[in-house]
Amino acid sequence: MTPFLAVDWGTTNLRGWRIGREGDAEAEVELPLGVSRLAGQTTAECFAKAVRPALGGEGLPALLCGMVGSNLGWRTAPYLPCPAQARDLLQHLVTVEDVPAPVRIVPGLSCKGLGGLPDVMRGEETHIIGWLALDLARQKGSHLICHPGTHSKWVRIIGGSITHFATAMTGELFDVLRKASVIGMGSVDNDIPEFGEGLKAAGDGGALSVRLFSTRARVVTGEADRNRAPSFLSGLLIGSEIAALVRMMDVQEGETIHIVGAPRLAELYGIGVRRSGRDTSIEDGEKTVLSGLKLLVELGALNDA
Amino acid sequence: MTPFLAVDWGTTNLRGWRIGREGDAEAEVELPLGVSRLAGQTTAECFAKAVRPALGGEGLPALLCGMVGSNLGWRTAPYLPCPAQARDLLQHLVTVEDVPAPVRIVPGLSCKGLGGLPDVMRGEETHIIGWLALDLARQKGSHLICHPGTHSKWVRIIGGSITHFATAMTGELFDVLRKASVIGMGSVDNDIPEFGEGLKAAGDGGALSVRLFSTRARVVTGEADRNRAPSFLSGLLIGSEIAALVRMMDVQEGETIHIVGAPRLAELYGIGVRRSGRDTSIEDGEKTVLSGLKLLVELGALNDA
Repeated sequence: MTPFLAVDWGTTNLRGWRIGREGDAEAEVELPLGVSRLAGQTTAECFAKAVRPALGGEGLPALLCGMVGSNLGWRTAPYLPCPAQARDLLQHLVTVEDVPAPVRIVPGLSCKGLGGLPDVMRGEETHIIGWLALDLARQKGSHLICHPGTHSKWVRIIGGSITHFATAMTGELFDVLRKASVIGMGSVDNDIPEFGEGLKAAGDGGALSVRLFSTRARVVTGEADRNRAPSFLSGLLIGSEIAALVRMMDVQEGETIHIVGAPRLAELYGIGVRRSGRDTSIEDGEKTVLSGLKLLVELGALNDA
Repeated sequence: MTPFLAVDWGTTNLRGWRIGREGDAEAEVELPLGVSRLAGQTTAECFAKAVRPALGGEGLPALLCGMVGSNLGWRTAPYLPCPAQARDLLQHLVTVEDVPAPVRIVPGLSCKGLGGLPDVMRGEETHIIGWLALDLARQKGSHLICHPGTHSKWVRIIGGSITHFATAMTGELFDVLRKASVIGMGSVDNDIPEFGEGLKAAGDGGALSVRLFSTRARVVTGEADRNRAPSFLSGLLIGSEIAALVRMMDVQEGETIHIVGAPRLAELYGIGVRRSGRDTSIEDGEKTVLSGLKLLVELGALNDA
């Protein structure tokens, strides 16, 4: 295949790889330079001075996905309406002008969600087409992917096309409550029994703002240890997400929920999903995003670059 | 009645009054010296140096309610289990030792809430008994009070006794999301049409973490104005609370929801409750907390002080 630089450029972080002729990652870099953390540099400067030198391969074209295509990023790529598939992304790549070697950005997706409210994604679409490309059998039938994170995405795929999705602000709620809440929490966030108590406390996922207060009430009444409250909160938020989204995304009895993400978080979601009585498969997010970017390049994303 | 100092001492603020022989407030003070904001002073120092001098009435006994009775406060007062009424609070007042003039603190309440999880209140119990004392007819029958705030309380009263309650962390969620969220929000939080859109977007109150993301998605898709996002968020959170709590507290068709709180917030909740098809009454929180503290003093709270 065409050698190229693959970059997953998010809000807080970026990861890049140099992909060789055989499709192997020949170099790799991870930097805390998400589009909201550029510390005065432009995206272009950051790419030229930090990303390219770290990956080598001068003059290679680059394919980027994630928040780098938002209005905080390098160029604004559109949100394509669902249903959408890999070829739609390919047709709406955005080309960055005025760079020494070609750079293109993958567009995001939008859909109408709960109560007609809009929903959007940027970056996850590349994971999804990458997940589909990892196994030809996935091109057929209906699949449900859960991509946990700051803004978790639950995505329905039918016949190789993303038909709709929903976002839960779970990771962000955890972060802001942990940092800023008067709930008053300790430091332990990997206590699996407390995480399990949180999953149980999530119930049917309703009345979240009421259940959240129990994180505090359990501590002040002496029923729980303050230090382990973050583990309880994590279970409560993840359990609420799973309960609400399984219903919202019409997950069928016996249907497997495919979790795509960073291994530690994917594992926690796996525990939650299995306790809710569904099967899971887990795929590492690094593998799926690389698979998606390579698929787009194989389909011609950088052909005339 | 016995002249005394009445103090509602919360987490971020305190309000105090000097109550005269006729039950009138002869002096009043409001200070940003909640128990989490004492800036190195002890509660005792703050009371002696800031509260007493501001109110005058040297040597008068004082009755305090709120977070001043928590482990962050002056003395830890217990959480009495529900059902509970004014006489129960009276029997469990906590006396502060080593002060030149008598000081007593009203205990809080606890109950078993959603899914058997514990719930607690401190300060609101005094509003509730005060609300009951404002009208003798309220001692009979069943009433539902909504006390909005950082941690909103919904309280069921039957035959003059608080039988159970639930807390929604609505105000705190609004604050932490507004300050710390990557939702990215503007500054306008009093736009009533956007607030109404938020109320509508709350739907049945379920899947809150999904609905919250729409605050952002509406802006990035151009459907809404970023500057007015706080008003939308406020409506979304308040609407979700009302939908969830009306169900959880078994509010009957045609039952009036009695809102007790600061006028501006009470008004927003009033809009939300009326749009959900229920009647409201609104009582100013200053009036109810003073009524509660005076009731306890009339029942003998400071008799042997």
